[in-house]
Amino acid sequence: MSKNQKCVVLVSGGMDSCVTAGLAIHEGFNPAFLHVNYGQKTEDREKKAFHDIAQYYSVDKSMEIDMSHLKKIGGSCLTDTDIHIPDTNLDNTDVPISYVPFRNANLLSIAVSWAEVIGAQAIFIGAVEEDSSGYPDCRRTFYDAFEHAIAEGTRPETTIKILTPIIQMSKKEIILTGKRINSPLHLTWSCYKQNDVPCGGCDSCALRARGFQQAGLDDPILNNR
Amino acid sequence: MSKNQKCVVLVSGGMDSCVTAGLAIHEGFNPAFLHVNYGQKTEDREKKAFHDIAQYYSVDKSMEIDMSHLKKIGGSCLTDTDIHIPDTNLDNTDVPISYVPFRNANLLSIAVSWAEVIGAQAIFIGAVEEDSSGYPDCRRTFYDAFEHAIAEGTRPETTIKILTPIIQMSKKEIILTGKRINSPLHLTWSCYKQNDVPCGGCDSCALRARGFQQAGLDDPILNNR
Repeated sequence: MSKNQKCVVLVSGGMDSCVTAGLAIHEGFNPAFLHVNYGQKTEDREKKAFHDIAQYYSVDKSMEIDMSHLKKIGGSCLTDTDIHIPDTNLDNTDVPISYVPFRNANLLSIAVSWAEVIGAQAIFIGAVEEDSSGYPDCRRTFYDAFEHAIAEGTRPETTIKILTPIIQMSKKEIILTGKRINSPLHLTWSCYKQNDVPCGGCDSCALRARGFQQAGLDDPILNNR
Repeated sequence: MSKNQKCVVLVSGGMDSCVTAGLAIHEGFNPAFLHVNYGQKTEDREKKAFHDIAQYYSVDKSMEIDMSHLKKIGGSCLTDTDIHIPDTNLDNTDVPISYVPFRNANLLSIAVSWAEVIGAQAIFIGAVEEDSSGYPDCRRTFYDAFEHAIAEGTRPETTIKILTPIIQMSKKEIILTGKRINSPLHLTWSCYKQNDVPCGGCDSCALRARGFQQAGLDDPILNNR
């Protein structure tokens, strides 16, 4: 794939998608940033992070999509107000209650629609297989299968790859990669529960804290407090 | 697959999805109806048809989803007000301008999310490969690929098949099937252009008219005028 090609980057506002966006730019892609509100409890804070990161990277194109119907469907503690966000348990090996059913397929589908219209040949998504919480739609086998569905379901001349550059990284490696390529980790947001200060107790806060500790670095969003 | 199982049926309000819903019920499924507004120009009329069909079949569950962000993305004469809906040309062999980029993947993704939450093991979609207008996301190869993506991207215990019972039928066969199983074709809407009376000139009106003619039947929505 030649340099300076357009790509769509799914940017939630968290560290993983921030570093993924940085890697896309580092590799010479011209990124269009796509943010999806799926009715998660911390959407307001994540949207601010999205805009801050888009501004940091001076992207030409960015779009916000409202998919809050995923909240109507529910089935996850991230979207359903009747389901409590549990305290962290990083030893859990089941699919966690924070899994939003088939969320990433919904995100990828709209990313493909946009990519096909603007002529982007790649979609970057910051999925992480290792060190993650066991989401089925974060595994490379899923992206391979989805890539095949894209090839079958779009115009014959359309070629869109799904690129997952951090999928095998640990949180420590993601943080160190972000630092190496000057990703604005200080602008990101991870907490599942709160919009003002990180709760420190949810899975996402715990993964972030462990990652910074293992990387031997301070988390800049805690220093900013 | 045993009878009386839950399924999700994508119901646009047109003849194809109406007959597909009828076949699901005919086979003993308990259907949940899903309607997606993707910003198409005739959405108001299609939504009325959806409600009329849901009422006709007395379904337990129905849901409307707003995906009008597909309009924001554009790229199709069905959603983009800057793109004119052309007069019919059923001899066209290219992907037509009414193709909404990767639309059916967006529809299927949200159908899968809902199916996984309510425990449905099948999704019915009224896609038609033959006699259609050449949409890439209406081919069975696409649904096979997507089914594989569902298996990879949902919980290990989730099994969801995509059923396309009319995919090899001509419009004539769809109409005759609908008549045989008493599908309420008089409640459906097909026109791409208008909300009050069918324009008669768009691809969708032309396919419908040719289907009724070949079936040797009168179109009930024209008799109702």
